[in-house]
Amino acid sequence: VILLTPGPLTTRRQTREAMLQDWGSRDPAFIELTAELRRRLTGLVHGEQSHTAVPLQGSGTFAVEAAINTLVGVEEKLLVLANGVYGERIAQIAGRLGRRVETLRWQECAPVDPARVRQALQLDPAISHVALVHCETTTGLINPLEAVAGVVAESQRHLILDAMSSFGAITIDLRQVSIAALLASANKCLEGTPGIAFAIVERQLLARSKGKSSSLSLDLYEQWRGFEANGQWRFTPPVQVVAAAVEALRILEQEGGPEARHRRYQDNMATLLAGMQRLGFAPYLDSRLQSPIIATFRIPEGWPWTFEAFYAALAARGYLIYPGKLTHVDTFRIGCIGAVEKSDFAQLLAAIEEILSRKT
Amino acid sequence: VILLTPGPLTTRRQTREAMLQDWGSRDPAFIELTAELRRRLTGLVHGEQSHTAVPLQGSGTFAVEAAINTLVGVEEKLLVLANGVYGERIAQIAGRLGRRVETLRWQECAPVDPARVRQALQLDPAISHVALVHCETTTGLINPLEAVAGVVAESQRHLILDAMSSFGAITIDLRQVSIAALLASANKCLEGTPGIAFAIVERQLLARSKGKSSSLSLDLYEQWRGFEANGQWRFTPPVQVVAAAVEALRILEQEGGPEARHRRYQDNMATLLAGMQRLGFAPYLDSRLQSPIIATFRIPEGWPWTFEAFYAALAARGYLIYPGKLTHVDTFRIGCIGAVEKSDFAQLLAAIEEILSRKT
Repeated sequence: VILLTPGPLTTRRQTREAMLQDWGSRDPAFIELTAELRRRLTGLVHGEQSHTAVPLQGSGTFAVEAAINTLVGVEEKLLVLANGVYGERIAQIAGRLGRRVETLRWQECAPVDPARVRQALQLDPAISHVALVHCETTTGLINPLEAVAGVVAESQRHLILDAMSSFGAITIDLRQVSIAALLASANKCLEGTPGIAFAIVERQLLARSKGKSSSLSLDLYEQWRGFEANGQWRFTPPVQVVAAAVEALRILEQEGGPEARHRRYQDNMATLLAGMQRLGFAPYLDSRLQSPIIATFRIPEGWPWTFEAFYAALAARGYLIYPGKLTHVDTFRIGCIGAVEKSDFAQLLAAIEEILSRKT
Repeated sequence: VILLTPGPLTTRRQTREAMLQDWGSRDPAFIELTAELRRRLTGLVHGEQSHTAVPLQGSGTFAVEAAINTLVGVEEKLLVLANGVYGERIAQIAGRLGRRVETLRWQECAPVDPARVRQALQLDPAISHVALVHCETTTGLINPLEAVAGVVAESQRHLILDAMSSFGAITIDLRQVSIAALLASANKCLEGTPGIAFAIVERQLLARSKGKSSSLSLDLYEQWRGFEANGQWRFTPPVQVVAAAVEALRILEQEGGPEARHRRYQDNMATLLAGMQRLGFAPYLDSRLQSPIIATFRIPEGWPWTFEAFYAALAARGYLIYPGKLTHVDTFRIGCIGAVEKSDFAQLLAAIEEILSRKT
């Protein structure tokens, strides 16, 4: 089975085989594995001088929540920039936690506009933090990180970046772009298995964040102090998932780092988009906004398939695609990330063509 | 390497091999796997009629926190019964979450006393929930679950049970014992791999718990509604860890269920205790309080080893033991759980004897 989803996705056998071992979570060998994980994570975004990597048990959402709870104080205020489900989720998390939060919204097909962000920050000095989703998996849209980060930095606010589905494949250089906290997970462009997420946080900011989180489990400060104190996770880590993540990071390096991975995903996406258009499926996004991560396709009017039947027909041929998540338009999504190549997409397109030929 | 710790612990190769596959987390095959997981979990404690299993990403502590946040309202009050680190942790979680909490404490070598619990509940009608740790991993002590549950039920309060290191090996029958929420994790007596925890909660109580949790991630009500709505996890599950947990539950059934596993662990513990006493190590606990999960041994006065050196010598021979966690006494711990048998303990004892003979 080939997973063409936003994750969990198709991983290399070598990565999964790293899970065949048992580890003592407080043993020196696992402490060294955790240290390698943290080193490689900060290294990937050139954050060695300024940032520290704090792995956390759970899904990516757990890391987003931990970042809001740990970094945004109750007397502070978060501005969320939202053009999809994941932006809205950040606002929802902050609201639940009782944090002051305001949301600037854009249509799902439109990128975040830095000029509007600048204006909002000028109008409301209470805003201390800004949250942005780098690649909105809702659509596959890539937001203008550098421009938004520039506006947030010049306004002297802290940027919290949900880089869940970009980290590892879209280059981020923390020496160039001002990001207070970057959140990611093991099972997207890193091509690890799910079960851990990461916060890569400015050390100075984190050091000032003691006692802010109302959660014992989702407290990035205490998690960080735990790692620094004895190299161990505070609470039982998913040892096999950690081993797979480290293996995946080694493989990423061998592949040539995020730049090489970006090229592979772009090849996948170009093959997919060209083929799908040939088969009559229009992409939802303007091509300038399209990330190489996942594509959203409009379901043609009068199409004789339900999504479920189309999904099942493709699944029977070994391809798992993804439903759409848009409110106003009927769509489905196909991911281009994971241990998949251009040739997989050529075969996928042949399978789609064959399926469609049976009903049209 | 054989892990003689409270977990993560030695698992069967077959369990780890269940992690060699990729799964689409929203695919029907994985939905069925999740349903099997939930069915088997409630079945293990005979909770089919009254309870529902809510798996959660993360470590066991995440499930404890989610239970407190979801079940104990801000206007309610939690009484924590503590005779070790894990009881204290529950109180700490509740305090962080801003819940009203009171702690009754016992010495680490003494079981929770139901009479004192009854008295406390009579004196303070504000107390709505009581939290108990079934087996305190701090020492290996087993608390009197049935008696405490009886007192809590007759006082019409809700019992929250941390069954982290007993679930799967010490029989709990929810038809006989009144437990509002039972918390456990995949990587202890179930012999799965770490990365998910479980709450097995009274359906009626959970149904009344909407909107109580201040956390989006750690909300058992929403997690439950998610499973009931479409069989899917709300947020990316650790698919391979889920597959390993289901495999581990199938193996547990084949072994003969919790009763058979209990016998195996008791054999392990009996072998360990007899051998260690022969080698001059006194157990910390009175034998009537000793669970078959983990044993704490006093470090003899004038012992020529540091724990680190002793640990390293045993690790070099393939055995990972565990440090002590007691405040007032120098101890170390050896776990009896996991895919280990009496013969492993015989070999461990021979290794310890050989190591000691070199320095005494």
